[in-house]
This record gives sequence, structure tokens and C-alpha cells, in this order.
Amino acid sequence: MSRTTAKLNQHGLVLPAPLKVPDGFTLPFPWVSTRGDRVFVSGHAPQDEDGSVSHPRGQVGAEVSVEEGYELARKTALSILASLERELSDLDRITGWARVFGMVNSAPGFDKQPLVINGFSDVILDVFGADVGRHARSAVGMAGLPFKIAVEIEAEVLIAE
Amino acid sequence: MSRTTAKLNQHGLVLPAPLKVPDGFTLPFPWVSTRGDRVFVSGHAPQDEDGSVSHPRGQVGAEVSVEEGYELARKTALSILASLERELSDLDRITGWARVFGMVNSAPGFDKQPLVINGFSDVILDVFGADVGRHARSAVGMAGLPFKIAVEIEAEVLIAE
Amino acid sequence: MSRTTAKLNQHGLVLPAPLKVPDGFTLPFPWVSTRGDRVFVSGHAPQDEDGSVSHPRGQVGAEVSVEEGYELARKTALSILASLERELSDLDRITGWARVFGMVNSAPGFDKQPLVINGFSDVILDVFGADVGRHARSAVGMAGLPFKIAVEIEAEVLIAE
Repeated sequence: MSRTTAKLNQHGLVLPAPLKVPDGFTLPFPWVSTRGDRVFVSGHAPQDEDGSVSHPRGQVGAEVSVEEGYELARKTALSILASLERELSDLDRITGWARVFGMVNSAPGFDKQPLVINGFSDVILDVFGADVGRHARSAVGMAGLPFKIAVEIEAEVLIAE
Repeated sequence: MSRTTAKLNQHGLVLPAPLKVPDGFTLPFPWVSTRGDRVFVSGHAPQDEDGSVSHPRGQVGAEVSVEEGYELARKTALSILASLERELSDLDRITGWARVFGMVNSAPGFDKQPLVINGFSDVILDVFGADVGRHARSAVGMAGLPFKIAVEIEAEVLIAE
Repeated sequence: MSRTTAKLNQHGLVLPAPLKVPDGFTLPFPWVSTRGDRVFVSGHAPQDEDGSVSHPRGQVGAEVSVEEGYELARKTALSILASLERELSDLDRITGWARVFGMVNSAPGFDKQPLVINGFSDVILDVFGADVGRHARSAVGMAGLPFKIAVEIEAEVLIAE
């Protein structure tokens, strides 16, 4: 078993099935795209284990609480790890997290985006540790996100080529 | 004729003139900046053939329909290809699209950003094909964009150094 | 004295202390993270010299004027240079600015984001010159930012490894 899989098991984390794309949407791009030693991660939604887009949806600070947003950001981390595992076969191939861009569907006046995106960062640090898991990050407020998801995250990770 | 130019012609696509910067704005940065084998593409607007900023403007979901947004995203693709051609001389030098960040000026409650940014992705895939044109992507809702444009896209592409 | 420090002094620019994180926030990520020859800069706030988050806060186009936004973007440049100096010891190690993503907390209808983020670009070009300082850029409107800051900027710079 890979080190990363062992860590996932140790923390009781289960990676979801591929995203069930909601009706009426065509998404002509891969969830993860590798170019050389760089792995580009498309904007991911929080997913349930069966791959459906998670609830609650809407704006954090209105329909969605900070605590729910944190949990949705954790689920987004698992969605991304699932896509990376499908692309790379083994998450141990990841040598470093580079950049994380955390987007929070934000009600007017909401300013606690970092507390939401911490749900993502905490999973990555738990699973990859402080050296590989270290990432530069922004956590910012969007006017809207696809399917009214509350959180969307895009990232770049590095692998040994 | 380069392969990419042939593809543009085949699809009837015409690249616009450089952006006519609206009065009152100074933009102290290049539209495209090459560093080694990485080509960074600044946030581009949809442009008409003469380089003027395209209409309609405003928020998708209010002043601008999804279909108009799709067409504006196509025009943004052409704006970016025009800037890349000016920088690289020959678009055949592009070895891969890396990351595409699609920003949609979004009315409250609008959540169909992917259907808008598909206008960009469809052009890139038509012109570059599935291998070179493959790109990681986000399509998200902004509270506002310069000149009230409905779509802005930033990207990174790779070249053989 | 390094060339960059001399330039900072020549322009009367003083780099601030590390960010005093507002109460109630945990930020489990570094302000700057180096991976090989790439230096990833997390989203930074405008900071005063003592490291506290600058005022005014709120949305540009409402509580904050364009001129104040420009000044806040200048301060954000200094915050980033301070973080880079702590990471790299010497800012002369920077061989090129790559990508700058300028986020403006935007009131409904505000569309002058480039005039705000010019405050950042002007500092970078003053300090690094046109060759090293050249950067691809987006300047866009956010629905909200942490701590109600008016400007947040993320970036990537390159160093000789």
C-alpha cells in the first residue's frame, strides 16, 4: 500500500467516484492534466462518495455556514485527490503541492474565506505532511460558482517526471 | 502555412487586431510574457476584428445571455491567439495548453459559467486538437470585470524552448 | 547592498513586518513557497509597516476610492516583497516575474480594476525594471476578500535555482 493511501485510511478518508456532471452541462476538459512534471488540477467541486455534487449549495454567509463550508472544502480536497489518483495511479508520485486557489461562493459582506478553505489545507497537510503538502494559497470570494456550489478549488502539484 | 493557421482558416476564424485600450486606462504589462518554455497569458477581453472591446457588456444572467456569453468566450479565444501569434510568430510553436482560468461577470444567482467558457475551450480544441489543446480549466463567477466585459480569460501555454 | 534594496531605498519604499494575522484566523500555509526555480506567492493583503492589515477596507467603488485602492495595491506589492525577502534573503535572486493575479473587492458596477492594480505593477517595474519586472497580469473584481481587504494579490516569480 502506498504511503499516501495508508494516510488516507488512517484518517478515515474515502475518495469519491468521478463527478456525476449535472444534466445540461458539457465539460470539454480533463479534471487533471499532466504536462511534464507539472500536474494541473481543474476547478473541482465538493463531491459525495458516489460522485454527485455535494450539498448544501449556495453562498457561504447566507445559505451555507462557515462550518458547512469547511466540510465542503474537505470534500473538495477528496474530489481532487480522487482525480489525481486516477491520473497518476499512485498519489505517492506527488513530490510537492505548488499552488492552491480556493474560491468561496460568498454572500455580500462575507469575509471569512480562509476559515472555509482551511478544510482543504487541513486534509492536504494530514495526508502529505508539511514538506510535500506545503502550498501557497489564496482564499477569496466569488460572485457565483457552477451548480451553485459553495466551494471550488483549483491547484497545481508537481511530480517526478 | 503553419498547421495552426490552416486550422484557423478551415474553421473560418480571423484573429483580431491588438486591443484598443479604452480611454483613461494605462495597462503597464504585456498581453503575453514568455519566461523559458512557459508563456503567460494576461487576462484577455473579447475583441472585435479591429481590436475594440466587444459588446454586449455587463453580467451574464442579466444584460448578457448564456449564448452571447459563449460567443464572447469564442472571441476571447481569438484575442488570446492573436496575442500569442504576435509573441511567438508561429502558433505551431505551442506544444501544449496548460491552465485556463475562465472568468464570467455573473449576475446574482447565475451558475452556468461552464456553458459560457465552453466557447473558449471549443475554439482551442478545434484549432489545436485534443493533445496539444487539452487544458485544465476553471469557469467561475466574478463580481465585476474591467470595462464591464462579460468574459475574461487568463491562461498559460507551453512552447519548445 | 543588493541592487533591489538600493532601488527600494531610492524610491523611499519600506518593507513591512510579517502580517499580524487578525484574531480568530489560523492560516496553515506559508506566504511564499519555493519549489525548484519557482516561487509561489500566496494571496497577500496590503500591510502597514508594523504588519497590521491596512485601512481603508471594503469595496472599491463604495467604501474605498480608486486612488485609495491604488495606494493599497502599492502596499500589497511591499507586503509581497517583504515576504519574498524573508524567503530568499536577497531579492536580487529573482530572475523574472511570471504571473500576477490582482483581485479587487468590487462594489456592484465597479469596472476600473486595472487602475487599482496598477499600484502593484508600478512598484514592481520601479524596483525590478522592465525586463525582470515584466509580468502577465489580470485585474478582476471579487465578491469579497478576507478581513474585508480591498485588494489581494497572488503571484509567481522565478529564481535561478
